[in-house]
Amino acid sequence: MKLLDTTLRDGEQAPGVSLSPDEKVEIARALERTGVSVIEAGSACTGAGEREAISRVTDLELDARVTSFCRGIHTDIDLALECDVDGIHLVVPSSDRHVEGKVGSTREDNLERTAELVEYAKSHGLWVEVIGEDGSRADLDYLEALMATALDAGADRTCFADTVGHTGPERTAEVVGRLAELGPVSAHTHDDLGLGVANALAAVDAGADLVHCTVNGLGERAGNVALEEVAIALSHVYDIDTVDLTQLYDLAQLVARATGVELPPNKAVVGQNAFTHESGIHTDGTLKDDKMYEPYPPETVGRERRLALGKHTGRAGVRAALEEHDVEVSEDAVAEIANRVTELGDRGRRVTDADLLAIAEDVTGADRERTVELLDLNAISGGSVPTASVRLLVAGDERVASGTGSGPVDAAVSAVRAALGSGADAELEAYHVDAVTGGTDALVTVEVTMSRDDRSVTVARSEADITRASVEAMVDALDRLLEADAQAFAPADD
Amino acid sequence: MKLLDTTLRDGEQAPGVSLSPDEKVEIARALERTGVSVIEAGSACTGAGEREAISRVTDLELDARVTSFCRGIHTDIDLALECDVDGIHLVVPSSDRHVEGKVGSTREDNLERTAELVEYAKSHGLWVEVIGEDGSRADLDYLEALMATALDAGADRTCFADTVGHTGPERTAEVVGRLAELGPVSAHTHDDLGLGVANALAAVDAGADLVHCTVNGLGERAGNVALEEVAIALSHVYDIDTVDLTQLYDLAQLVARATGVELPPNKAVVGQNAFTHESGIHTDGTLKDDKMYEPYPPETVGRERRLALGKHTGRAGVRAALEEHDVEVSEDAVAEIANRVTELGDRGRRVTDADLLAIAEDVTGADRERTVELLDLNAISGGSVPTASVRLLVAGDERVASGTGSGPVDAAVSAVRAALGSGADAELEAYHVDAVTGGTDALVTVEVTMSRDDRSVTVARSEADITRASVEAMVDALDRLLEADAQAFAPADD
Repeated sequence: MKLLDTTLRDGEQAPGVSLSPDEKVEIARALERTGVSVIEAGSACTGAGEREAISRVTDLELDARVTSFCRGIHTDIDLALECDVDGIHLVVPSSDRHVEGKVGSTREDNLERTAELVEYAKSHGLWVEVIGEDGSRADLDYLEALMATALDAGADRTCFADTVGHTGPERTAEVVGRLAELGPVSAHTHDDLGLGVANALAAVDAGADLVHCTVNGLGERAGNVALEEVAIALSHVYDIDTVDLTQLYDLAQLVARATGVELPPNKAVVGQNAFTHESGIHTDGTLKDDKMYEPYPPETVGRERRLALGKHTGRAGVRAALEEHDVEVSEDAVAEIANRVTELGDRGRRVTDADLLAIAEDVTGADRERTVELLDLNAISGGSVPTASVRLLVAGDERVASGTGSGPVDAAVSAVRAALGSGADAELEAYHVDAVTGGTDALVTVEVTMSRDDRSVTVARSEADITRASVEAMVDALDRLLEADAQAFAPADD
Repeated sequence: MKLLDTTLRDGEQAPGVSLSPDEKVEIARALERTGVSVIEAGSACTGAGEREAISRVTDLELDARVTSFCRGIHTDIDLALECDVDGIHLVVPSSDRHVEGKVGSTREDNLERTAELVEYAKSHGLWVEVIGEDGSRADLDYLEALMATALDAGADRTCFADTVGHTGPERTAEVVGRLAELGPVSAHTHDDLGLGVANALAAVDAGADLVHCTVNGLGERAGNVALEEVAIALSHVYDIDTVDLTQLYDLAQLVARATGVELPPNKAVVGQNAFTHESGIHTDGTLKDDKMYEPYPPETVGRERRLALGKHTGRAGVRAALEEHDVEVSEDAVAEIANRVTELGDRGRRVTDADLLAIAEDVTGADRERTVELLDLNAISGGSVPTASVRLLVAGDERVASGTGSGPVDAAVSAVRAALGSGADAELEAYHVDAVTGGTDALVTVEVTMSRDDRSVTVARSEADITRASVEAMVDALDRLLEADAQAFAPADD
């Protein structure tokens, strides 16, 4: 069984990312549930806030070893000891660029200093891993001598660090192979060349028995290698168990929320699309046999499969989606609906449930009156009490209501709820606004998922006005969810 | 020289992604500038819109070979011919799951059919690459027989496809090695296990001379292997030239805009943070020697280095940032400012230029009056003409103005511009809103970069009200940019 080390410290070194002590505690608990063996909780030298966070994590008394990063100076070790950590990752320079250029030392002095620091840390009862910084650009003979010195001085293990994401799997295997002959060795890889996972696997193959990872591959520059990718690759390709894979998705979402770094849709294992099928060939194949277009079942990593509609959708996908909404149509109609879905996708539009249902009605000539319709909307924002009013047509009955909220959209949503009254027991399951880049007049895409009883509907709207886009999407979703029993809330008592 | 094939078709199969013909043409031109050898412009069978797009690309008469994807049926080839493509990627099943389960054929019939389709395509003058779908899960002897059949029938090359992202580099090398003995072979890898690049490199090492990639690694599920990662890895680690690397960043941004799939900050080569340094150790090292924490210079891929401020910032980073704004302070002050920057970062805040300058003034006791201050803001949205008014204090002079726009923020920005008048010749360089996930009352983070002459200032604000956040950020940036010559626009003639 190979082990994974998750470095909160490195993940947090991603520019713009900072975790509060509460967030670190929550992530540490999730990492413990996932079963990582080492949690590098932070870098004690960073400041008082950071030390509080590390101490809070050590207080949890986890099964995982809780550590701090330390630069090669005594005070860093002292600060780590203040946090009561189990161990440290002691970073010493190993390439000439770092030994001479950065630290202003010499190869010989660096050896002596490393030995002294390791002895100091060990004398205080710490587990010590010595990381040779910039190891991938170091002279291999010197790196080997440095690591031998560290182990002789009592270090528990060494670590090959491709600090700047410079090298490939062949060199990684060569260096790790040499270091593994000296004692236990870890691998610390970065993704600057897209080789984070390749190098981690090469290191394991060459004898590394601990891999430094970060959740979602956060970290300096292009980030460290991602925990979820190393774990699934070791499991699926090499049959090597590490952590509890079913925890990976929850963990990824927790870290995305805490750091504010959204998961890219095409991120392996944890991205929104990792188990989503849109194209006709893939959807059709997947409906015949789950395994047709998936390397492993989504449940392996705590997820579910999703079929999406869009430009590449074929008949099988349309048929499956209509069934979900209990809509029955002829085979000819399915073909025509699939054509229209493709056309909509062709125009660059996201195709949602509401779009599909509207197309189906149009194709089958089903006569449908809207249950909920937006007649008028006004929202005032910028001041201290964002306020909005709406005029809705609800089952033929015109209703006007107002509401306040934390911003224009929130106020408008309150107004819609007030207008509908208690009969409209639909829940806002998800509210998502795509990131806006460009000018202040750029189109904003809002996607709303609402549910009622066991049915859910997703609607997307793109408008330059975020308030209008949000309310239109919400009203369209409500219209779909409430049509079944418009009577339930039609007799308004206001 | 190894060659790269960029598949627009596969990139577009990413759920939710759809490109218009205009966008495909623009991307094809950018791919041509980058120097890829094959552009798979689409899948002709998808629909009329798709065929128009492919035809528009073939009309460009690029040096790159322009192709269409074709399923193993004659009509797909006919539709590709209608678009006047140079060649096709003919996909035939190769694993038993696909031969029997998906297509309902037999191994023997599949061989015959493949030969017949290749002969048909070749008789129409097409360049033909035969992709053995699900090749990584195929019986290797059968895959070899299938590909030999294709080549005997006149195919120009074969392709090993890890269609579902199932395999690792060892198996890839084994299969590609066998196929390379038959004739020219391509590799088509997916990133479900984080192994897209590793497998592509293993394939090249085993004899593949064409790699299928997508820009930004878009594609089904976790996506195809990313062009930019394969190109930089081949260049940096293996000294193999492929495309013009300096074009990669522009290309990535173009595709991100066209597809609406934002670049993750920690994406190798093209992510916002790929050449950004925040932590004290890294910033300090980079200021001493560019190469200290970078595998290759950002200019290699058409980019620039960036230093960011945050929780891990040290004195060197603060000193460099203050110099950029021509602010001189004592060494003691630098240390104190660095502490305060760290504290701000510790609270989970993004630290911008404006934050740094405010801290510096506070630490040095510099007495500063605001040049521009927001006194009041009101924006009306939701209706047909979003409208806003502002009351600003500009160099001691109170000004009221109104404006309209495409949404509440755009209207408010117009109002601010009107209030400032012509003296305020600052440009809005960038306006970015983080994606919003959660409820309609979630905090919205807005980041604004404004520039005037050769100085630029970035400000971020997080508020539940997007209008307020946007205007506050803009006003703070203007305040910093205009302070140098408040007089220039103070004497208002209104």
